[in-house]
Order: sequence, then structure tokens, then C-alpha cells
Amino acid sequence: MEKKGAILILSGPSGCGKSTLLKNVYKNISDYYFSISTTTREPRDGEKDGVDYFFVSKNEFEEDIKNGQFLEWAEVHGNYYGTSLKPIKKALNKGKLVIFDIDVQGHEIVRKKLNDLVTSVFITTPSLKILEQRLNNRDTDSNAVISKRLDNARLEIKSFQKYDYFIVNDDLEKASSELVSIANITRIKSKLYDNESIINNWIH
Amino acid sequence: MEKKGAILILSGPSGCGKSTLLKNVYKNISDYYFSISTTTREPRDGEKDGVDYFFVSKNEFEEDIKNGQFLEWAEVHGNYYGTSLKPIKKALNKGKLVIFDIDVQGHEIVRKKLNDLVTSVFITTPSLKILEQRLNNRDTDSNAVISKRLDNARLEIKSFQKYDYFIVNDDLEKASSELVSIANITRIKSKLYDNESIINNWIH
Repeated sequence: MEKKGAILILSGPSGCGKSTLLKNVYKNISDYYFSISTTTREPRDGEKDGVDYFFVSKNEFEEDIKNGQFLEWAEVHGNYYGTSLKPIKKALNKGKLVIFDIDVQGHEIVRKKLNDLVTSVFITTPSLKILEQRLNNRDTDSNAVISKRLDNARLEIKSFQKYDYFIVNDDLEKASSELVSIANITRIKSKLYDNESIINNWIH
Repeated sequence: MEKKGAILILSGPSGCGKSTLLKNVYKNISDYYFSISTTTREPRDGEKDGVDYFFVSKNEFEEDIKNGQFLEWAEVHGNYYGTSLKPIKKALNKGKLVIFDIDVQGHEIVRKKLNDLVTSVFITTPSLKILEQRLNNRDTDSNAVISKRLDNARLEIKSFQKYDYFIVNDDLEKASSELVSIANITRIKSKLYDNESIINNWIH
């Protein structure tokens, strides 16, 4: 049965709990590839190059844009973020579930380019106030950065209906189980199957 | 948080195992309403009126068509099949997951009318040959009826890509778990949420 890989896109404001949710998903699914974004922003405490992001200079990033090396890229909070095309193609060809943690702009671009492969989820905290508390509590960002993140969250929430699913992360266990279910069924989207070969194999 | 009910549509040839799969789903989900179709065909051995179908006469069915009582209806294998509108509306207003077991034509009509609410799954056996074996083994239909069902299956499989998901029922446990996952996440489709109230509640 001919089948392609699939793409699962997660978006949602920094502080909504995406990373914790993803850790739970990884325990419960197999054969996935997590797309590591490339960025020009400074690493936070504990972040590692090649694990959390590929950290590059503005010059390097702009060079890659020129050479068409990005599936999508954008400037957010004054820094570049992008997804390199090569590893994604490789993983899809192996039939893997490729997981993206990207923003609303990135989601729109990937959807436009690879619509049939994409399932997408928007994740939020129950409210902006709770997001603010979480960002203050995690103590990794300056007040100015937190304030930028909140402004951005206010804008991004308006796009949630462009996503297939909407998860309000107020109960970690419930939200994790929803995300695991989505990850699992992302692989049986009918659009992922090769129409003609299915019908031919089925009838004969 | 304002939310509507949701619709899960299952289609697939008679003999693909839908009823057995559904029994497994019911054990694992809550707050659903299974839509009982109305038909003019004769009950099979063991089938009960009001449980498997509402069995009515051709005259009664045609009267209901005239009065706009059906969400969808069609003539298949020389008999009428349809879905009454009233109980569906009631269940959706209560926020329930409404499950339909309808054919390809019915799916197209319901999707056209209630697109935002619908998640759909096409279920098949691994091949037409295996479908034929299952229909012969269950020993409920005459050869003429089986032959009609196989002709119909040959046509219906061609529409599988109009559905959101495609399940090949060759491993009952795997297929059940996929269907349960779909049923669960059908309730968190972003389109089911009232856009404005979410955004207002979230920001304030």
C-alpha cells in the first residue's frame, strides 16, 4: 500500500506548555522526526545547539534564504526563525511523522506548500492572564521579552480556526492524551494514500 | 467556552466490520448519540425496529421526503435509506458526538450541509476478495444481494479520498483503537469553537 509520510504542526504562544506536551507525545508514538528550527536568537539558559534549535548568525541565515534552503522562515520578535527543507524531505520519504513547532505564519506557509500532508493543532493556556503567570514563573525571559511574547499571543490566538484542532492546555494529562490521539491518527489521513494504487489493489 | 456538538460519519461497504468496530468505540467514548437510519428494506434476521433501523413503508418514507424531514436520503439497492433531521438537531444542541453510519452519497450531502461539524472515516476490508468472503460467511444475504453489495463496494471505494480518514480493517484491535482516537479528537476540531467568544474570553 503506497503511502507518504505525514506532517503534524503545533503552534501556540511561548509558555502554553508545548514542550512538556511534546515530551509526553514522544513516549507514546513511534517513527517520528522532530523538525529542529534554525534561529538567529540567543540561546536561553540550558538550550543546546542542534537540540533545541540550530543557532546561526544573521548572515548565515540570510545566505540560506537566498539559496532557497528554507521550507518557511519568518522574522519574529526581531529574530529570524526558519525550517530547513532537506531533513524534512528525507524524513517524509522514509514515511515518518514529521513534527513541527512553528508559529502561525509558518503554519500558513507549510499548509500552502504541503496541504495534503498536514494536520495542525493550536495549543493555548486557558487565558492570557495564565500565560503571563507562566512566562513570569519560568523566569527565563526579560520583562521586555515577556511583553513582546504576550503581544504576539494576543495576535496569534485570532488564527486558531485556521488549524485542524484546538487544545486548551489546562489539564496536562487530558491535553497530552488529545495530542497523542492526533499524532496517531495523522498517519491515516485519507489524503496520504495514493488514490490509484489503493483502488487498483483493492479491486483486483 | 461556547461549543457545538460534532458529527462523526462512518462509511464503507457492508461487511467491512463497521458494526463490530462501533461496539468497541462505544465502550471507550462517552456522550455520543448514534443516528438510527430509516429504511424501507426488509429487516434481516435479528434486526430490531428502532435499534438497527426505523423500518417504514415506501409510502411513509416518501411522505417524509415531501415534508423535508430528512437531513439526507437516497435509494440504494432498490430501497430507501435516510436520516431524520429532528433527533440530530436535538443531540447537537446538547453538545453530543453524533455518529452516522451512512453511504458515500449520504456523506457528501451531510458534508455539504454541516461541513464544519463533520469528521469522516472510510472503512474497508483489505481487498474486494476478503469482503466477498466475509459477506458469504455471515450468511445473512442472498447471492443476488451479495452481488449487488460487491458492485456497490467497487464503486464506493473510489470515493475514499473525500473522507478525512481511511481505515483498512485487517486488524480489529488496531482499527478499533484508530477509530476511538478519531472519535475522541472529533470533539476538539477548531471549527467547533465559537471564534469570537473564544478570543474575547481569552484576552480578557
